[in-house]
Amino acid sequence: MGSLDANPAAFPAFNNSVVDGSFQPLNPDDVRAYLHKAVDFITEYYSNVESMPVLPDVKPGYLQDELTASPPAHSAPFDVTMKELRASVVPGMTHWASPNFFAFFPSTNSAAAIAGELIASAMNTVGFTWQAAPAATEMEVLALDWLAQLLRLPTSFMNRTGAGRGTGGGVILGTTSEAMLVTLVAARDAALRRSGSDGVSGITRLTVYAADQTHSTFFKACRLAGFDPANIRSIPTGADTDYGLDPAKLLEIMQADADAGLVPTYICATVGTTSSNAVDPVGAVADVAAMFNAWVHVDAAYAGSACICPEFRHHIDGVERVDSISMSPHKWLLTCLDCTCLWVRDAHRLSDSLETNPEYLKNDVTDSGEVTDLKDMQVGVGRRFRGLKLWMVMRTYGTAKLQEHIRSDVAMAKTFEGLVRADDRFEVVVPRNFALVCFRMRASGAMTEEVADEMNRVLMDRLNKSGKAYLAHTVVGNRFVLRFAVGSSLQEERHVRSAWELIKKTTAEIMEEPIMQ
Amino acid sequence: MGSLDANPAAFPAFNNSVVDGSFQPLNPDDVRAYLHKAVDFITEYYSNVESMPVLPDVKPGYLQDELTASPPAHSAPFDVTMKELRASVVPGMTHWASPNFFAFFPSTNSAAAIAGELIASAMNTVGFTWQAAPAATEMEVLALDWLAQLLRLPTSFMNRTGAGRGTGGGVILGTTSEAMLVTLVAARDAALRRSGSDGVSGITRLTVYAADQTHSTFFKACRLAGFDPANIRSIPTGADTDYGLDPAKLLEIMQADADAGLVPTYICATVGTTSSNAVDPVGAVADVAAMFNAWVHVDAAYAGSACICPEFRHHIDGVERVDSISMSPHKWLLTCLDCTCLWVRDAHRLSDSLETNPEYLKNDVTDSGEVTDLKDMQVGVGRRFRGLKLWMVMRTYGTAKLQEHIRSDVAMAKTFEGLVRADDRFEVVVPRNFALVCFRMRASGAMTEEVADEMNRVLMDRLNKSGKAYLAHTVVGNRFVLRFAVGSSLQEERHVRSAWELIKKTTAEIMEEPIMQ
Repeated sequence: MGSLDANPAAFPAFNNSVVDGSFQPLNPDDVRAYLHKAVDFITEYYSNVESMPVLPDVKPGYLQDELTASPPAHSAPFDVTMKELRASVVPGMTHWASPNFFAFFPSTNSAAAIAGELIASAMNTVGFTWQAAPAATEMEVLALDWLAQLLRLPTSFMNRTGAGRGTGGGVILGTTSEAMLVTLVAARDAALRRSGSDGVSGITRLTVYAADQTHSTFFKACRLAGFDPANIRSIPTGADTDYGLDPAKLLEIMQADADAGLVPTYICATVGTTSSNAVDPVGAVADVAAMFNAWVHVDAAYAGSACICPEFRHHIDGVERVDSISMSPHKWLLTCLDCTCLWVRDAHRLSDSLETNPEYLKNDVTDSGEVTDLKDMQVGVGRRFRGLKLWMVMRTYGTAKLQEHIRSDVAMAKTFEGLVRADDRFEVVVPRNFALVCFRMRASGAMTEEVADEMNRVLMDRLNKSGKAYLAHTVVGNRFVLRFAVGSSLQEERHVRSAWELIKKTTAEIMEEPIMQ
Repeated sequence: MGSLDANPAAFPAFNNSVVDGSFQPLNPDDVRAYLHKAVDFITEYYSNVESMPVLPDVKPGYLQDELTASPPAHSAPFDVTMKELRASVVPGMTHWASPNFFAFFPSTNSAAAIAGELIASAMNTVGFTWQAAPAATEMEVLALDWLAQLLRLPTSFMNRTGAGRGTGGGVILGTTSEAMLVTLVAARDAALRRSGSDGVSGITRLTVYAADQTHSTFFKACRLAGFDPANIRSIPTGADTDYGLDPAKLLEIMQADADAGLVPTYICATVGTTSSNAVDPVGAVADVAAMFNAWVHVDAAYAGSACICPEFRHHIDGVERVDSISMSPHKWLLTCLDCTCLWVRDAHRLSDSLETNPEYLKNDVTDSGEVTDLKDMQVGVGRRFRGLKLWMVMRTYGTAKLQEHIRSDVAMAKTFEGLVRADDRFEVVVPRNFALVCFRMRASGAMTEEVADEMNRVLMDRLNKSGKAYLAHTVVGNRFVLRFAVGSSLQEERHVRSAWELIKKTTAEIMEEPIMQ
């Protein structure tokens, strides 16, 4: 590949998107033709992805070796671009859309979401203020209010309630990390104010808290916001609480900090940790936090989607007492990347820290105070038409189908869990809460736990190298554990069963080998 | 609208995306059907957008009044979603894609970019590590290296040079604000280390600098990173430097801070300010910064795209002496939102502050140090397949067409500037550097400047209310100024000329009115 440009004579004077001698990058005929080619590619991709190796066999630098090192001087037919995509890009993909993908959390997706993102890309609005994109701003507010209803969030988190405009509000961000960052900054500024800090000098006294199972991005977000690394408390958890945060331990540590003259500022509670889907007790954490006037944020990035089903809703019980909650429909609610929803109980507490008011964005509607300018609830100023795809998912599929989707994934995970439990070479390491099964080969006979760890590592590597499945791992209670995450959107029960057959077969092979005896 | 759900009997048992009794959200037939409907909508939209009011006549809350307040319980045909989009969303859009859009900076776009984003949405990979998405990671690196070549950035900013792997690197982010934030944090941590700070206690001594024309999001990014608001220096500019930063003033203020025991940490230089397209002298700023070991970041969000043309490249002369530079192809390089490119001279200076290493992402390739894991150069962990659309734009159109696109926009802006200069009721307020013309009605006769300000405000309001053009404003040298930004991707010279006719006609009407006499 890449030779096309090395041989420019192949397309010496190709002149695409040119009408009447001038370059028209959005000529409607070209738009239609290019997008139809893209749609052909996508449907072909979905039809074939099952047979492609989930994890590709490529080496670092492979793409630079295949494509030209420099941009082409002249234009080429769009077919050339698509040909290089097929020949060089696809073989180097880790196929998150593969039904044999069981790693991380799946990035679920749907026809309605992709169509929504496509339309948003074409309209290409920048919704920093209400005036700059009224429909985009209102659609985002509406989609968040709808999703809040699906999650049965209290009306205090909603922009508009039956009684009119509420004090709460939401915003769609790119990642959970951003949701953490903006709420950390709001909490930081509030704590500085109430502790009488001169400027930011009091920041060295502010402390933040999270269970040791919390995603490492929380600790990064704290550092981004300027918190002292020495003041970030990682609270130990164990098997006794299924790796959820123990409120008694939290209280003890917060009280000790307060007694030492520090200012407990922020607690991150996770519902469905990345490592093992542990759940921190939201209500109990909120009760402890209230004693110190600390901000409580709930990170329900993955498992939040399950809470649209009544049978899972109890995992966020107590949410009415927290300050903010975020979850990511791009993980488990059929909405392609990126889409992280953040709700706060008092939108002004965010905008107090995040508002900007440059001259060129001043307008009567903003001045009236009647609207939310979404730039004041996020890191940056510019923003896509973020609400459209989320609305299209809810509008098209409806609550019942979205619930069916969650339940179907959970049912498949239960099936897998049952298969694991029925095979005494394996153990399920922590209780399965949602659609993630954490399991491992047991240390059998005289085998040490260290040897078992190594066997599990070998098992994972062989599975992943086979191209027929992709699993990730974690460490729980000092043990190497395999994560089997169900839910890739093309996945059916047969894929789960095939993966289990592959696991059993590979395990048998490993156990035959001398090194493991 | 919205009555569809109030009358559920209309779609009592519609069962979309259901095959063999189970819900298949990515069924290839549905994907094709939905996307073809979306493509039809888009081509129809581009064909008609010229005739739609650029700025809609809607009131806050309008969309909530039109659509149902709660999510539908059951699914509906995708046509229902599209019908509501057409009926309720489109009339409330500010049409950034309209050729009559002259506000802010245009969000330029192209068929190749939209197709690239569509494919990325469908593949829906999460490229936090190289292993999780090799092709996506490498494509992003390649696209940034290509664009660096178009901009003639020094090889020190590139990931791969003729001599092998470089020390530099880049990443694609969502907004310039994020580029500022991550570099501010890297500079902050480096300054804390070299000033011997105990944890973050030294943060109160760190100072940052930018001209008073710098985008307000810089000051917000500084506050996000924990800098003391009292230590953020806004350096006054004036007509004598065309509102560019005066290096002598910068030196004076930095020296005074250093003499007072403070630690000059970071300077943001802008090439093409949002307000009036002022240009800070990059090389001279870098020379001053070097005396204090301060980080220099160049924000070329808009005008950076112009620097792919040799005749504009001089605006970033001296870039080889700065630490980082960012520009946004989503503004002026035909790449739909969002796409902000950040390059740093030493990628490790970013990752030192931004690296995380959770167990579930550990893998051999990362451990080898051979690859860049892009999560370590950004705020969050998750990330879209960000490089694809940018590569598709460069691959499809080639350098020559991209340059032609920039030159065509600049030529149209020159045309408009000439029309303004030829009419003595108007003045061009600052020199036009790129495709933005800042102009105003003059204070004529005995008219005070304050009355002229009011007349210009009335002119803008009437133009925008007409639906036939949309302009934004700024304040330069205490005067209210109209911003006429050329370059919306469907725009042709006839639209620029029509807008000028409308401006002349509206001005004549205003001048006839008693209040303005």
